Amino acid sequence: MRRNAGDVSTTPQTHCDSKIDEEVAKLLQLKAQLGGEDGKHQFVLKTPKGTRDYNPKQMAIREKVFNTIISCFKRHGAETIDTPVFELKETLTGKYGEDSKLIYDLKDQGGELLSLRYDLTVPFARYLAMNKITNIKRYHIAKVYRRDNPAMTRGRYREFYQCDFDIAGQYDAMIPDAECLKIVHEILSELQLGEFCIKVNDRRILDGMFAVCGVPDEKFRTICSTVDKLDKMSWEDVKKEMVNEKGLSEEAADQIGEYVSMRGGMDLAERLLQDQKMCQNKQACAGLSDIKLLFSYLQLFQVTDKVVFDLSLARGLDYYTGVIYEAVLTQAGVPPLASDSQNGASSEESAGVGSVAGGGRYDGLVGMFDPKGRKVPCVGVSIGIERIFSIMEQKAEASAEKVRTTEVQVMVASAQKNLLEERLRLVTELWNAGIKAEVMYKKNPKLLSQLQHCEEGGVPLVAILGEQELKDGVVKLRVVSTREEVDISRADLIAEIKRRTSEA
Amino acid sequence: MRRNAGDVSTTPQTHCDSKIDEEVAKLLQLKAQLGGEDGKHQFVLKTPKGTRDYNPKQMAIREKVFNTIISCFKRHGAETIDTPVFELKETLTGKYGEDSKLIYDLKDQGGELLSLRYDLTVPFARYLAMNKITNIKRYHIAKVYRRDNPAMTRGRYREFYQCDFDIAGQYDAMIPDAECLKIVHEILSELQLGEFCIKVNDRRILDGMFAVCGVPDEKFRTICSTVDKLDKMSWEDVKKEMVNEKGLSEEAADQIGEYVSMRGGMDLAERLLQDQKMCQNKQACAGLSDIKLLFSYLQLFQVTDKVVFDLSLARGLDYYTGVIYEAVLTQAGVPPLASDSQNGASSEESAGVGSVAGGGRYDGLVGMFDPKGRKVPCVGVSIGIERIFSIMEQKAEASAEKVRTTEVQVMVASAQKNLLEERLRLVTELWNAGIKAEVMYKKNPKLLSQLQHCEEGGVPLVAILGEQELKDGVVKLRVVSTREEVDISRADLIAEIKRRTSEA
Repeated sequence: MRRNAGDVSTTPQTHCDSKIDEEVAKLLQLKAQLGGEDGKHQFVLKTPKGTRDYNPKQMAIREKVFNTIISCFKRHGAETIDTPVFELKETLTGKYGEDSKLIYDLKDQGGELLSLRYDLTVPFARYLAMNKITNIKRYHIAKVYRRDNPAMTRGRYREFYQCDFDIAGQYDAMIPDAECLKIVHEILSELQLGEFCIKVNDRRILDGMFAVCGVPDEKFRTICSTVDKLDKMSWEDVKKEMVNEKGLSEEAADQIGEYVSMRGGMDLAERLLQDQKMCQNKQACAGLSDIKLLFSYLQLFQVTDKVVFDLSLARGLDYYTGVIYEAVLTQAGVPPLASDSQNGASSEESAGVGSVAGGGRYDGLVGMFDPKGRKVPCVGVSIGIERIFSIMEQKAEASAEKVRTTEVQVMVASAQKNLLEERLRLVTELWNAGIKAEVMYKKNPKLLSQLQHCEEGGVPLVAILGEQELKDGVVKLRVVSTREEVDISRADLIAEIKRRTSEA
Repeated sequence: MRRNAGDVSTTPQTHCDSKIDEEVAKLLQLKAQLGGEDGKHQFVLKTPKGTRDYNPKQMAIREKVFNTIISCFKRHGAETIDTPVFELKETLTGKYGEDSKLIYDLKDQGGELLSLRYDLTVPFARYLAMNKITNIKRYHIAKVYRRDNPAMTRGRYREFYQCDFDIAGQYDAMIPDAECLKIVHEILSELQLGEFCIKVNDRRILDGMFAVCGVPDEKFRTICSTVDKLDKMSWEDVKKEMVNEKGLSEEAADQIGEYVSMRGGMDLAERLLQDQKMCQNKQACAGLSDIKLLFSYLQLFQVTDKVVFDLSLARGLDYYTGVIYEAVLTQAGVPPLASDSQNGASSEESAGVGSVAGGGRYDGLVGMFDPKGRKVPCVGVSIGIERIFSIMEQKAEASAEKVRTTEVQVMVASAQKNLLEERLRLVTELWNAGIKAEVMYKKNPKLLSQLQHCEEGGVPLVAILGEQELKDGVVKLRVVSTREEVDISRADLIAEIKRRTSEA
């Protein structure tokens, strides 16, 4: 998900607080370096502010979410690329408006001036220009970095994942754009996050609307930022900001107010094409025609049930040039983000209550990197995975089902002492046959502790060795869930384990 | 693969050259910022020094290698964790000896002092201490960062992957250690990189050997570094360095020379336990007994064919406390690294011609993070994936088989004009059935260009729509490789595609 640029409403109060927090943290770190009271060197045992470790349970959930997303990207024929975690500072300059101050820079240790990547879109554009690639459909899943005010309980971190899918190339209008929306629809449906809605608009319609409502050209961007707040402020407050703070005429504001309350589907686009004022603006007409075309493709893709043409959608990033969209979870139970606006959050994260994906068309970005300014039209979507992780984690917590953190199928155990060698011999057989197996790293573990390990870790089977079993050439196979035990001959063991674990 | 610390043999000449290179790069960047000759702002289109993008072909190879490695880690019951790409600077301090100067620091932008991670072992130890975890078997695959002199054609980068598998916990001796070697054996066998050899030694044997040969205590580390060069220098040169540069007596050097020429298996450990001098040293005896025990487990794991007890193996990192090992590709055809020693490379990368994995036991590292110094014994291995990527890429280049970068099973194509809607309708059916499919984003693409796209991308099937097919309620299914075409009824199409693609 691309957060908005150019609209960081940090209040002086929170800014100051966070500055104090940071300075205190630095002093504590220095104190720790100087040594504790016992003169011993003390470490501050933590991860950096706004970051976290993923424990095995969180990783299991993360893997599941990634698999769903990657399967979808692959189903749509995407290749994947990777880029370095840092770029030349210069590469990121001038792409993010005011949000540039949130970029992490590396220390100048001699050599190039470097910054951590802020999103995956700018590195993608740099990659296309550098390799003179004019068409590609690629996905990229990687961490990006922003020195934002973290709100980790709500899934906002300074280090976080983005899952981007983009289509670059000169194609017929709205076909790739529609596929991006199809992909968002597929992923959010498959992840079963509850009801959702995908809002669609177009930069050209917004600009055209501002023009016909009498907004002066130089105020387009700032009025656009104010419109973007409609999902967390009432129209009255938005109007007040336009008139009192941004100096717009009351008449213009009222006209905008009429438009931005409109939402619908293809019918709305058709109606606005007939609108006396709108139809006079060339840009708006082009945008509205494209929205109409987009909806016709969305019908064929069978996703119009969740897509709404919403004139109040105004994503902040500078680089969008055409259609824009944002997916929002609408079901109750999604942790609210209402207080974000008081926390100095940049506006996109707080944009939708439960905003989980966003994107749009950016036809000019690659040209900014090309020495001759050659353009490569692009459209893409970014899935906001951290929010989805939070929801999936909460669901996992609430559910009775245990999250497994390993895939072990069999524990090789022994009922008596002095059978370590026999256990190692058997587990080797299983590994060599491709079975996921483990033994305890003890010479003489208790049977009970071996069984307990299986119950806790969700290991479905135990292969138990004892003197008698060895004499008889069998292994006692125990089903952990039912405690049922059955003797299997050594020769049949691998086939039996494979049969039982493929059933599950 | 953990590179050695404390042994960066940068000559003044190369040091100076690299400094000049860096300054030139910085000036060129500044010049570019000031604008080109036409006064237009110019970008430097490159990735930072020592880094690279992965294109789709490289990603396909990377995915294959990762899948092999992850499958093996999972087969052995490992969980996975993730940690942030940067740590508090303090966390990394004092862990890497002289190599600390290769750590990337972040700029102080207010807040904590941060550094990019240098390996995955120190963050793992920090994670264990911070969460008070006393036993875990985990893998971690992630990028690490070193401001080293890159040698990218030989697979040495400033940003590179490590694939670590570690077992933490108080267990019976040598059982987890043996499993780490089993894992290296499985991975290198499965990747089919050619012949390999896993060298094993023990820090305690090295230290004991130095003691009985009369090396003064304070020279253990530096003499150890010199021994470590035996795989790229002759014994004569190593001896010269010991005597002339490090001030060791000729007699002591000769005694070391006898030991470090020894290699063997369990028999060698038994022989050295009887060695008049060695058996007097308690440390050496403990190490030798453990090597004996290790080999008995390796026999059960069926991997002794590739493991050699080699007294010249002396990995550099400070934190190893017991068994150490390193896997080396021995087959001809592996790009040589001989010139590394003249390039100011840190010693491990250049250690083995074709060194691809390394690790050992580090029982003290977690205790360095624990406020009460509580120890958690650990043993682990790190797979040096960049070298393996290079080899796999070369193999792919040399092979006639094309590397596919997408998994598309069917292209939905049309033979006539004005069938876009029909194509979109059909591709939707396929996507909804879980089939990997694509269409060209053109209203009226030429059939030839649709077929060409399939041939180039390795797409096996084309579903062709035409007026006649639509009338007849069929789709023409074309097999790209044989050019065979057959009409399939719409109702049977999905089953037929699934049947044909599961065969492949």
